[in-house]
Amino acid sequence: MSTPIDFYFDFGSPYAYFAAARIDALAARHGRTVRWRPVLILALFKATGALPAPMVPLRGPYAERDTMRTAQLNGIVYRQPPNFPQLLLAPPRAALWIENEYGADKAATFARRCFEAYFSEGIDISQDDAIVQLAEALGVDGARLREGLHSAAIKEQLKTAGEEAIARGVFGVPFMIVDGEPFWGFDRFDQMEQWLTQAADTKAAA
Amino acid sequence: MSTPIDFYFDFGSPYAYFAAARIDALAARHGRTVRWRPVLILALFKATGALPAPMVPLRGPYAERDTMRTAQLNGIVYRQPPNFPQLLLAPPRAALWIENEYGADKAATFARRCFEAYFSEGIDISQDDAIVQLAEALGVDGARLREGLHSAAIKEQLKTAGEEAIARGVFGVPFMIVDGEPFWGFDRFDQMEQWLTQAADTKAAA
Repeated sequence: MSTPIDFYFDFGSPYAYFAAARIDALAARHGRTVRWRPVLILALFKATGALPAPMVPLRGPYAERDTMRTAQLNGIVYRQPPNFPQLLLAPPRAALWIENEYGADKAATFARRCFEAYFSEGIDISQDDAIVQLAEALGVDGARLREGLHSAAIKEQLKTAGEEAIARGVFGVPFMIVDGEPFWGFDRFDQMEQWLTQAADTKAAA
Repeated sequence: MSTPIDFYFDFGSPYAYFAAARIDALAARHGRTVRWRPVLILALFKATGALPAPMVPLRGPYAERDTMRTAQLNGIVYRQPPNFPQLLLAPPRAALWIENEYGADKAATFARRCFEAYFSEGIDISQDDAIVQLAEALGVDGARLREGLHSAAIKEQLKTAGEEAIARGVFGVPFMIVDGEPFWGFDRFDQMEQWLTQAADTKAAA
């Protein structure tokens, strides 16, 4: 039985959005599943002293251009959100709550929907109302979610998720771990695919 | 007449080495030439506040693993130099001196040779002796080079090269600029190739 691909993401990262748009199909091509793991990129950055690219001189303008180009060349619809970049706390908390209550598949579907809403439909997913509406469309109890995502337990769970990620060497998003092998960035999808192919070849030869 | 690809590099960067190993062939496939532009990555980092990856927690170990994997998957011989990472001043100064005295082609050949010597043969190119020996094998006057690379004029030229790079938005290496379009990283070679293909299509359609 193949182990799942661990997929660490922050809802505010364009590159995580690109990864989210492609990772399930990539995994499926290699008989793998994806374990969607929301984290806060700011928590990871604290561990390395890094700053968000949009705040860095020279890198900021480049990142914007690179994002548009990467979307275009990969055929992914991308519209820079009106308030980009912004700290998004509600979506990862909601994703964890939905996973607790409805299971990982529902949480992954919710995460995919949040990414699309934010990066292609101009919906401000920093707002509870937007989050609840997106979740309700997937059959989630909106009233319970609205309460749950502000619970101390969920906040603690998200904090712990960040600490566990850092302990595994995760320092940015998107970050994927396949059988212990770390891949950082949407631009490592090619290498991850080659790695998965080699893993399958090795298994077949064994 | 197509404009050349501007290729900014620091001799101490493994990813610049990978780029150096592939950029001439890529350019040739699209009827382009390459303008080799040595810079000091530390000068660029001053402009953004960035730190070299090997010095950053979590990123350091990842970078080492990613470097080995990138070399392997691209079929490039890579042996981490004994004193890696190190500040390399002699190679870029020598490259500029050789360009002044012998022209850009000789300087590019010298740069390619330095990368190979450093990243695949364990030669310490921080040392003048090594630099002079590599240059002499290419027909360069070693005695004049040994003097020239320590001249105030060359030091100033390298400093100016860094300032000009920063003014063009260069904040890391390898960094390529094609018809004004910036590409940062060996992992953007795919996008650069697609970009060059589109540029050719547009030209053909015009």
